[in-house]
Amino acid sequence: MKDKTIATTNKTNTTTTTNKKETGITVNKNDDFSGWFSQVVEKAGLADHISAKGFIILKPYGYAIWESIRDILDKKLKETGHSNGFLPCLIPESILNKEEDHFKGFNPEVFWVTHSGNSELNEKLALRPTSEALLYSIFPKWISSYRDLPLRVNFWNTALRAEIKSTKPFIRNSEFLWQEGHTVHASKDEAEDQVLMILDIYKNLIENILSIPTITGYKSNKEKFVGADYTTTLEGMMHDGKALQLGTSHNLGRNFSKPFEIKFLNRENNEEFAWQTSWGISWRLIGAIIMVHADQQGLILPPIIAPIQIIIIPIYKNNNEKIVKENANSLKNKLSQLGYRVFVDERNEYTAGWKYNEWEIKGVPIRINIGQRDIENNTIEIVRRDTKQKQVIPLIQLKENIEKIFGTIQNDLFVNAEKLLKEKTKKVSDYKEFKKTMNNAEGFIICGWCGDEKCEVNIKEETGADIRVLPFVQKELNENLKNCIYCNNKAEKIAIFARAY
Amino acid sequence: MKDKTIATTNKTNTTTTTNKKETGITVNKNDDFSGWFSQVVEKAGLADHISAKGFIILKPYGYAIWESIRDILDKKLKETGHSNGFLPCLIPESILNKEEDHFKGFNPEVFWVTHSGNSELNEKLALRPTSEALLYSIFPKWISSYRDLPLRVNFWNTALRAEIKSTKPFIRNSEFLWQEGHTVHASKDEAEDQVLMILDIYKNLIENILSIPTITGYKSNKEKFVGADYTTTLEGMMHDGKALQLGTSHNLGRNFSKPFEIKFLNRENNEEFAWQTSWGISWRLIGAIIMVHADQQGLILPPIIAPIQIIIIPIYKNNNEKIVKENANSLKNKLSQLGYRVFVDERNEYTAGWKYNEWEIKGVPIRINIGQRDIENNTIEIVRRDTKQKQVIPLIQLKENIEKIFGTIQNDLFVNAEKLLKEKTKKVSDYKEFKKTMNNAEGFIICGWCGDEKCEVNIKEETGADIRVLPFVQKELNENLKNCIYCNNKAEKIAIFARAY
Repeated sequence: MKDKTIATTNKTNTTTTTNKKETGITVNKNDDFSGWFSQVVEKAGLADHISAKGFIILKPYGYAIWESIRDILDKKLKETGHSNGFLPCLIPESILNKEEDHFKGFNPEVFWVTHSGNSELNEKLALRPTSEALLYSIFPKWISSYRDLPLRVNFWNTALRAEIKSTKPFIRNSEFLWQEGHTVHASKDEAEDQVLMILDIYKNLIENILSIPTITGYKSNKEKFVGADYTTTLEGMMHDGKALQLGTSHNLGRNFSKPFEIKFLNRENNEEFAWQTSWGISWRLIGAIIMVHADQQGLILPPIIAPIQIIIIPIYKNNNEKIVKENANSLKNKLSQLGYRVFVDERNEYTAGWKYNEWEIKGVPIRINIGQRDIENNTIEIVRRDTKQKQVIPLIQLKENIEKIFGTIQNDLFVNAEKLLKEKTKKVSDYKEFKKTMNNAEGFIICGWCGDEKCEVNIKEETGADIRVLPFVQKELNENLKNCIYCNNKAEKIAIFARAY
Repeated sequence: MKDKTIATTNKTNTTTTTNKKETGITVNKNDDFSGWFSQVVEKAGLADHISAKGFIILKPYGYAIWESIRDILDKKLKETGHSNGFLPCLIPESILNKEEDHFKGFNPEVFWVTHSGNSELNEKLALRPTSEALLYSIFPKWISSYRDLPLRVNFWNTALRAEIKSTKPFIRNSEFLWQEGHTVHASKDEAEDQVLMILDIYKNLIENILSIPTITGYKSNKEKFVGADYTTTLEGMMHDGKALQLGTSHNLGRNFSKPFEIKFLNRENNEEFAWQTSWGISWRLIGAIIMVHADQQGLILPPIIAPIQIIIIPIYKNNNEKIVKENANSLKNKLSQLGYRVFVDERNEYTAGWKYNEWEIKGVPIRINIGQRDIENNTIEIVRRDTKQKQVIPLIQLKENIEKIFGTIQNDLFVNAEKLLKEKTKKVSDYKEFKKTMNNAEGFIICGWCGDEKCEVNIKEETGADIRVLPFVQKELNENLKNCIYCNNKAEKIAIFARAY
């Protein structure tokens, strides 16, 4: 039943037109990546714009992808000692002002509530750009001794940041779905372990569930979260060679615990300021799935998170409609019982070819065609969305075959993305080459960096590229990238530069 | 691990004080119901106030109750053909103005965003008091023919309504967690069936899962949802005799489809306006659980939705700590494998008695004490939270016994609440008696009503009571309540009046 609603809320594809060309993706992915992206979002039935700038509505099919991602991450966070809570979306100005640097970082993007009904409020309320300030103003009530630590809480909510630049569904929106996790620790070491544990959980989610390879490491001081000691990040490469930040995990040190007076009595009964972390991923991951895996025909979803994993198309004529549909539904029931999310497209008003096209746009990982001959032979025809490969398998080995195909798809998607990442990543030691590469927007550049923010700023101004990540693995520093790409002084770090979303 | 965080974020109870009296509920439930309620919310670790009026934070233990309720309802909604989506929380003023009556109903409570950063917005944005207007401005994009119907979507989000009156956690807040469901249908009959199907789903949730009896029926025209043809409601009685509206399901007729132009082509290819419903429940249900089931010692949670269903307290001395704790944990593992949510309280810094007190406040349905003698006898001691009854059971019948006890608790909670509801519900045919009863705030009054809003308004002014529900079952109309309680004209309806939260 769920799938029925998901399937019937995509008017663009199902009702107004029957011409294959019009309902398909008409913008060429290689010519106009951005236009192609917008078409995939619209025609796969993921989201709609509303009239206010930068805001989108998630349609059931788009939200179901978010639910899949959320449920997998939520389970993992609970297993590792985190609990969820709820925070209001409005934050009094005075609370936001407590940590000045932090607030300044968000100020230009903050939406302000000034009135309720016709009355002006005594104090302006900010729509949360993030919840550190609000939550940390409460933490002193929750924490008094080491026995209350570690405290690990998480919030599935939205953040609101007025977007002035051009907006893009899932990538740059004035309100976006995310999770924000916050922890408090009795020691610096424990906070550091937490930061890395979360990064590892994110890496596992993004690489093994979403099939997107990542590069992990630190943000530069310029790019770190405002108020953090340091920020760790996961960067991914989109199909056009641009970078997308996929998740971040921040070590806040005691930068918030001091202004917000988050203290605890240690085992020796002395009062100390606590150590904190915060971290988040957002629906950007859906944007990344599109920009990494989707093709000219539409979305391609990794099987683990696909709202519909298997679409069954009964192929029938007037004389065998009943028996073919019965078999299709009995196959559906069998697959549902095996735990798969399956939908049978029984609609008479569309041809099989039209249906193929629609479910391709929606990125359903495998399609099963079932017709008279399949019933007679006790076989089914399986078509992979990612490769279009067809294979006929006996019904008797259903579970083994589906599991194997899903595993292969998950893996192939990752391998293809990793291949692109490698192809479009260059080691560069000459700034002229750097500029040339960046002008062609050719992907990631690995190079040496002196550590001076001035070089970073100049490079950004001259090429549009910034430091995406200072990778944890710094092996090139001792090999061949010993000098700063910009000033030629001794390199302190290996950096990965790219243009980014 | 989840339970650990839930258990360690309740500083009030666990760290600052060890005096049983101070950590327990000190306000008498019968003397000061409202003060008692606030203490239960605070000391059970459910929620905290923030500085902005009417806003609360849900602590992990409070949010986990909401998660339980949400997951159960979400599953049921998906099984009955509903899918979830996401809506922004900001609504442009022009959209809100499209259905004037509807908007007027919410206007005094609307929070307005007027600025982002330091810039004034071109158009004011309202924080959603409810999402009809925003969503229905998009529906014409999603619907063109009968094939797109029924459309059934649901949103788990918050609604924002600036509370001017006195606020109360879970009952009256400026932002509250809820779900709002919206459906579109091709026929009036189908919309009516939908309204009643949802009411039935709610009734099942509230009565069978939360153990709270309800009275179902229609709201009067005065009390219905602004913009609806009619509103159906579930009313519950709190322990103090006041009513609480627990959920509503609205038939919107074509009141929104006309201004928002939600049309579809019917099977005869003629254009028609669609029929709509909307419906919701909120975290009020948590407030209801407290006000119906909790006692002088604190919360009492129905087992199905309790975040921790079983608390195990190892009873040990220095010489047997290890073996008792090992046995407690092995019991925990056994119960976890059976699917129960269990936590072992191993903390050495507190006495067993102190722990009993704490988990009683938190309303954990059953406590298992395990000591040396239990280990030797292969037994455990089970204590019910609701009745404090103790029983010793053999380990070998664990599953059967726990299931049976949980079933009994769920049922006993309902039976007790139903008993109170019956005791505090009176049939009244004389207005003097009506006033006397209401002045003593003695519960629900069943009486005849002529159907005139004037009588309804006068009664409200004179007694503080309003029509909570016009019950579906109207049997008293033909029995003995043939006249309006106020004007004495012929009664058109049987109404239930009460003071309400």
